[in-house]
Amino acid sequence: MTITSLENDKVKKFRKLQKRKYREEYNEYIIEGHHLILEAFKRGAILELIVLEGKDTPVPAPYNYYSYEVMKKISAMDNPPEVMALCKMLDIDNDIKGDKILVLDEIQDPGNLGTIIRSAVAFNIDTIVLTENTVDLYNPKVLRATQGMFFHINIITKKAMDLVLLLQNLGIPVYGTDVCGGFDVRDLEPEEKEKFALVMGNEGNGVRQSIKEQCTKNLYIEMNRNVESLNVGIAASILLYELGR
Amino acid sequence: MTITSLENDKVKKFRKLQKRKYREEYNEYIIEGHHLILEAFKRGAILELIVLEGKDTPVPAPYNYYSYEVMKKISAMDNPPEVMALCKMLDIDNDIKGDKILVLDEIQDPGNLGTIIRSAVAFNIDTIVLTENTVDLYNPKVLRATQGMFFHINIITKKAMDLVLLLQNLGIPVYGTDVCGGFDVRDLEPEEKEKFALVMGNEGNGVRQSIKEQCTKNLYIEMNRNVESLNVGIAASILLYELGR
Repeated sequence: MTITSLENDKVKKFRKLQKRKYREEYNEYIIEGHHLILEAFKRGAILELIVLEGKDTPVPAPYNYYSYEVMKKISAMDNPPEVMALCKMLDIDNDIKGDKILVLDEIQDPGNLGTIIRSAVAFNIDTIVLTENTVDLYNPKVLRATQGMFFHINIITKKAMDLVLLLQNLGIPVYGTDVCGGFDVRDLEPEEKEKFALVMGNEGNGVRQSIKEQCTKNLYIEMNRNVESLNVGIAASILLYELGR
Repeated sequence: MTITSLENDKVKKFRKLQKRKYREEYNEYIIEGHHLILEAFKRGAILELIVLEGKDTPVPAPYNYYSYEVMKKISAMDNPPEVMALCKMLDIDNDIKGDKILVLDEIQDPGNLGTIIRSAVAFNIDTIVLTENTVDLYNPKVLRATQGMFFHINIITKKAMDLVLLLQNLGIPVYGTDVCGGFDVRDLEPEEKEKFALVMGNEGNGVRQSIKEQCTKNLYIEMNRNVESLNVGIAASILLYELGR
C-alpha cells in the first residue's frame, strides 16, 4: 500500500523533522539517498525506510511506500530521492576522544559544515566539537555534504566558553586562525602536530577574539595579498592537511 | 521615483538575466551586494545600480530605486540585498596567459566553482580555463561564492577536447587527479611546479578518462582510506596550495 496523504501520521512526523526543534525533541532525523542510507545501515542508525512507490529497498529494514508528491514534501531537496530513511541519533557520551581535535565555532553554512566533516575524516581527526551556535549537524544539507562521513567520526557538542581551558588541561595545544599576522602553518614543528585542537570560526568573522587570546598559536595559510581570506571549508581542510603531515 | 512594477522594461530585462541564455545574448549579468559591487566598480564593469528605495548608492554610477517586492524578483537570494548592479561582460581575448593554469572541466555546483576561483587567486594562478560543460561563470551563486575574486583573474573558456594538446604544445605539463593510484602531490619536484596546468573534473566522476590518459601526471592527496574522495573545491584548493609551495 502506498501512503499518499499528507495527513498520514508518519508523513506529519517526517515533515516536523525538517525543523531542528523536533529533531532534538524526538532524537530522530531524516537522511536522503542510497549512499547515506548504506552508511547509516552499517552503523545501525536506521529506524525505517521511506521508499518511493515502485522502487527497491536498498537495505533490509522496515519500510513503507510513499507517492512522489508525499516524498517531495518530506525531502529537503528540489527533487526527492527514491529512498529516504528515518534514523535515530546514536547514544554518545559526549567525551573528547583521541588527541587530534577539530572545534567548529559558529559555522553557519550547512554545506561548509558537511564538507569540513568529510575533510576531517580524510585527515584523521579523532573528535569534532561543535559549539552551541553552529548549524545543526542533522540539517539534511549538512548530512548530504558529509557524503556519509558523518557516520565515521566522533562528533560531540560543548559550550565554547570553557572549551579552550578544558583542552589545555588535557595537555592539548589549541590553535586558532588569524588571516593577518598569524603563524605560518608550514613552520610548525613535527612535535607541534602530534596532538592539537584546531578551532575554526564563523564564515564572516573568523575565530572570535576571546578564543584567539587563549590559543597556543594562531595559524595562517600563506596566500596572495589581494585575497582577504579563503572559504572556511577550504581553510579548515588545508590546515588539517598540514597538521596531518 | 521608485520602480514598483514587474512590467517595467528594466525589471523585465533584469529578470531575463537570471537565465544563462539571456546573459550570453546581452553580454550582461547581475551582481548582488556591496562587496561584489565595489570590486566590479574597480574593474569598470558596472552599467547601472539597482537600489532598494531609501538606501544609498555605494559607488558613483547611474541608478534607479526599486521597491522591495521588485528587488526580491530580480535577486537570486531568498532575501534580496540593498543593492545590485547590472554589469557588462568584459572584453577578453580568450588567451591562456601565464604558466600557472587551472582547468575546470564539467564542474556542476555553483558554490564549488566560486570557491575554487577564490582559492585560485589566493594561490597565484594566472589563468582559469572553463570547458564547455562547466556551470556558467555568471550564475549569481558562482559570483557570490567568488567573494569578488572573479574580477582579479583571467578566466577564459575552451573546448576540453584539444586543450591538453594545446597546453603541452605551450610546454606546460598537465596534471590530472586520480584518487586511486595517483602520484602524491607532495612528491613533486620544485621544477615540476614552476609551470603547470591542473585539471579538475566533475563532482561525481572526477577527471574524465580521455583527459587522464593524456596527462603528464595524475596527482593524489594522501588521506584516510575510509574516505573515497574530498569535495572537489577542497581537493582543488589543496593541490593549488601544494603546487604554489
